[in-house]
Amino acid sequence: MKKSFPLSRVYTLIEPGPVVMVSTALNGRPNVMTLAWHTMIDFEPPLVGCVISDRNYTFGILKKTGECVINIPTPDLGRKAVACGNISGRNADKFGRFGLTPVKASRVRAPLIDECYANLECKVADQRMAGRYNLFILEVIRAWIDPRVKNPGTLHHRGKDIFMLSGKTVRIPSRMK
Amino acid sequence: MKKSFPLSRVYTLIEPGPVVMVSTALNGRPNVMTLAWHTMIDFEPPLVGCVISDRNYTFGILKKTGECVINIPTPDLGRKAVACGNISGRNADKFGRFGLTPVKASRVRAPLIDECYANLECKVADQRMAGRYNLFILEVIRAWIDPRVKNPGTLHHRGKDIFMLSGKTVRIPSRMK
Repeated sequence: MKKSFPLSRVYTLIEPGPVVMVSTALNGRPNVMTLAWHTMIDFEPPLVGCVISDRNYTFGILKKTGECVINIPTPDLGRKAVACGNISGRNADKFGRFGLTPVKASRVRAPLIDECYANLECKVADQRMAGRYNLFILEVIRAWIDPRVKNPGTLHHRGKDIFMLSGKTVRIPSRMK
Repeated sequence: MKKSFPLSRVYTLIEPGPVVMVSTALNGRPNVMTLAWHTMIDFEPPLVGCVISDRNYTFGILKKTGECVINIPTPDLGRKAVACGNISGRNADKFGRFGLTPVKASRVRAPLIDECYANLECKVADQRMAGRYNLFILEVIRAWIDPRVKNPGTLHHRGKDIFMLSGKTVRIPSRMK
């Protein structure tokens, strides 16, 4: 027997992940925010849909510069990643404050976060849904991975202060790509 | 030192989850497909963006009926869920074939999948991005959960036949909703 579940908490069921850190730069000043609402949109070129609220400082930077980096943290960076999501970059230098290292990207002005095991350099491909849905379609134009990190764990948001750590990997026969 | 990562495999890094099973009905005939490309778009009313390829039988049904149910399986349903993603409902009755039980929904004609621990009844809220991005904005209008399932595990796709099982839950101080 099932019971009704409040619509206001639906996001805790379906909120995806991994939690990612989106870095940007405006006039040479780097910034970073954390988010968990994103989805792949296409395989290649890889398109990623990211929901970035217009209340976030990053929203305006993204509209202005059309560039960002999606950085994927392992769970050991969890506290820093979450802390980055709790304050605004309008008045704070989050890289300095949280001991994150900005590294020059190859194709965008936004920096890679060195501590993250994967970095995806992105251009905004379509911002027509940014007004209504806060949804940016990003095209990944260069991707980096740290080969020393084997089987990287990821962090997934379940709502409020609850996070799920990725568990074990299994193989299930599949014809999916 | 990071190394370049092929763009064609970016989706294996960022592909979210949980894997969900989307059920629909056309002229009283139920169907189901499996997908992992979705994201929350807004909290309340809950909006979910789902990428459903125009090669999928579900694409046309969704455009025609404007209704579906997002069903969330626990990992024990993994093989059935993946198998559902490997064949088309055009010629197969997937409910019968995989022993899934359709249950009448309250607000849409698409059935709930009884075996899944959570079911989200959805109306298509916006299909303007379906043409270009295969992206449907769904509004969840009723949600159900099985209260007997404590700490439900979830299944996450990492590309091809590789899946990640949800791991342990941790708390990290956060001001996120």
